[in-house]
Amino acid sequence: MTEQRLQELLAQLQPADQGAMDAAERRQAELAKPPGSLGKLEEMGIRLAGITGQVHNTLDKRRILVLAADNGVFAEGVASTPQSVTLSQAINMTRHLTGMSTLAKFYGDEVVVTDVGICVDCPSPLVRNRKIRYGTANLRREPAMTWQECLDAIGVGLELAEEAARDGVQAVGVGEMGIANTTTSAAVLAALTGNSAEAVTGRGAGLTDEAFARKKAVIDDAQALHQPDPADVVDVLQKVGGLDLAAMTGVFLGCALHRIPAVVDGFISIVAALCAVRLNPLVQQVLFLSHVSYEVGYRIAQQELGLSACLELGMRLGEGSGCPLAFQILRGACAIMNDMATFAEAAINDDYLEQLRGGDAFTVNP
Amino acid sequence: MTEQRLQELLAQLQPADQGAMDAAERRQAELAKPPGSLGKLEEMGIRLAGITGQVHNTLDKRRILVLAADNGVFAEGVASTPQSVTLSQAINMTRHLTGMSTLAKFYGDEVVVTDVGICVDCPSPLVRNRKIRYGTANLRREPAMTWQECLDAIGVGLELAEEAARDGVQAVGVGEMGIANTTTSAAVLAALTGNSAEAVTGRGAGLTDEAFARKKAVIDDAQALHQPDPADVVDVLQKVGGLDLAAMTGVFLGCALHRIPAVVDGFISIVAALCAVRLNPLVQQVLFLSHVSYEVGYRIAQQELGLSACLELGMRLGEGSGCPLAFQILRGACAIMNDMATFAEAAINDDYLEQLRGGDAFTVNP
Repeated sequence: MTEQRLQELLAQLQPADQGAMDAAERRQAELAKPPGSLGKLEEMGIRLAGITGQVHNTLDKRRILVLAADNGVFAEGVASTPQSVTLSQAINMTRHLTGMSTLAKFYGDEVVVTDVGICVDCPSPLVRNRKIRYGTANLRREPAMTWQECLDAIGVGLELAEEAARDGVQAVGVGEMGIANTTTSAAVLAALTGNSAEAVTGRGAGLTDEAFARKKAVIDDAQALHQPDPADVVDVLQKVGGLDLAAMTGVFLGCALHRIPAVVDGFISIVAALCAVRLNPLVQQVLFLSHVSYEVGYRIAQQELGLSACLELGMRLGEGSGCPLAFQILRGACAIMNDMATFAEAAINDDYLEQLRGGDAFTVNP
Repeated sequence: MTEQRLQELLAQLQPADQGAMDAAERRQAELAKPPGSLGKLEEMGIRLAGITGQVHNTLDKRRILVLAADNGVFAEGVASTPQSVTLSQAINMTRHLTGMSTLAKFYGDEVVVTDVGICVDCPSPLVRNRKIRYGTANLRREPAMTWQECLDAIGVGLELAEEAARDGVQAVGVGEMGIANTTTSAAVLAALTGNSAEAVTGRGAGLTDEAFARKKAVIDDAQALHQPDPADVVDVLQKVGGLDLAAMTGVFLGCALHRIPAVVDGFISIVAALCAVRLNPLVQQVLFLSHVSYEVGYRIAQQELGLSACLELGMRLGEGSGCPLAFQILRGACAIMNDMATFAEAAINDDYLEQLRGGDAFTVNP
């Protein structure tokens, strides 16, 4: 993908359909309940209307897009899990053996796993091969990838979203598999927001104190070495990001372009979402946060996005494992908008009962 | 119901099955994920095992039990909604027109609505008639109900749980319909915990400042007038509670007796759950909290129960409207326990790949 093409696509983004949102808000006000009493279920329904341009939506076809890639910074000892797990879990996801894919199968969500940079060839035909390179370089010593590789990874994400639109997918979830990608995500978040490594770095999948200190040092070192430009998302992703992060950024952009609701799941996913929003703030309008992540940087990214999560589950598995659960909540929001009675419909009973009882039915303790 | 019978039933409660919980915990440790990384989904699976005595559970048959009753304290101007809404919404729930029942229908949950004290006869045959009396008395002036009426209402709840057990229901949700029942719930919570009206009272379904002040004054007055015994739940419920609260207390007790997981939904429901736990602390073991309620007293009750909610949706509709959503999360917890691969199962891939690649597959950037 060329930079010019990226700029063209970014310029094509349209704001949410205000007419549909107004109509959806009017309908919520007509439903037989105190105003606002269904909280985020109402908000979700209204925001979905803004995305699709329709008051009434269904989310029958849902797809979780998982981007898998390895990270050269693994060599610095910043992860507690062997690097081979990126490949094995990417494959296991397609076999519905992992946490995310177990839930996806249970609830009936599709899972598409794409290799954008696993550090070895993937022998499974079930994993989509869109490998940009065999893992990134070690960002403590050199840029994680080239400018062109970063654009190409974003391009893969854009294509995946375009394919989802073509297939009639009504909601996308964005997950990842990439050992050491909490390090790259923290580095990107620090670069984009001007926070220190201390403020944005968590223990990932379970680090020792020593490895945790190392992780923070690596992020500070990378920031000092590369001095990525916080106003230039591609520069940041290229220097201190990862191929998974770049491709996920492309997925969020593509969802905004094709007006597909996109579920942001976990720390890595929210950093990619923030990258996409920094490229064009209109991306924010298609985003829904699943669960609150344990990772300390999550809340920083959440505040930047001005969104809040709907699930409080203490999860820290990654993979996109909260997406299947968030999809179910979004489906409930659609059911409220589509099926709940209005005051007019619900009031039929009052008239009926008044008739039955001659109008004096409702006194206390008759 | 007699008090002796209640005491007999309370004495029959058994603790959670520790053997099943240990086995469930061992299984969670074997699943291919960092320990604890699925957070509350793991906890839920383990607690469900303790309730049913089985590591593997399904929640295919789910039922929401709604207890409907009117409250004499309505006469004090503590509610913003007409009293007739108790009856009309109880009927609308059976027709799947309300918020809760719209969601229940969408996800495939049963709804059973029982009249334990609506202040008029209910003309709908779809609402179960177990009316104890036509609404309670005004608790600001006299006890809400008699001792016997309170026991009878608890008895109705126990029967509903027993019926659910007979019908093979695998999870119960506990909802309510009763205008002014945030006032009775706050009064019960204040009495049980020794908190002031100020600390436990919220605005319910949307009060004016004046009505809000009145609501708190009513609760303080009732406390001063009746001085309910905080150590005697029946005394508290009888004097300052409601027929819905008493029956819901019975449902929670019955779920504990029959070892059915019970979803606590919202402020009124959690106060009833606390009543049941005060009658026998073992009840706590079958409880699952759905969403965090807006009502200020909710968090006090939550701390007393030592449980936390899984949904953060800003909901304040009541009815049991969070139960259908919480059921879906609990089903996900079951799917993880039942279907996710163990490390042994997931590792098959590593062996397979090692074979393919002669053992040197997993180096960075080969």
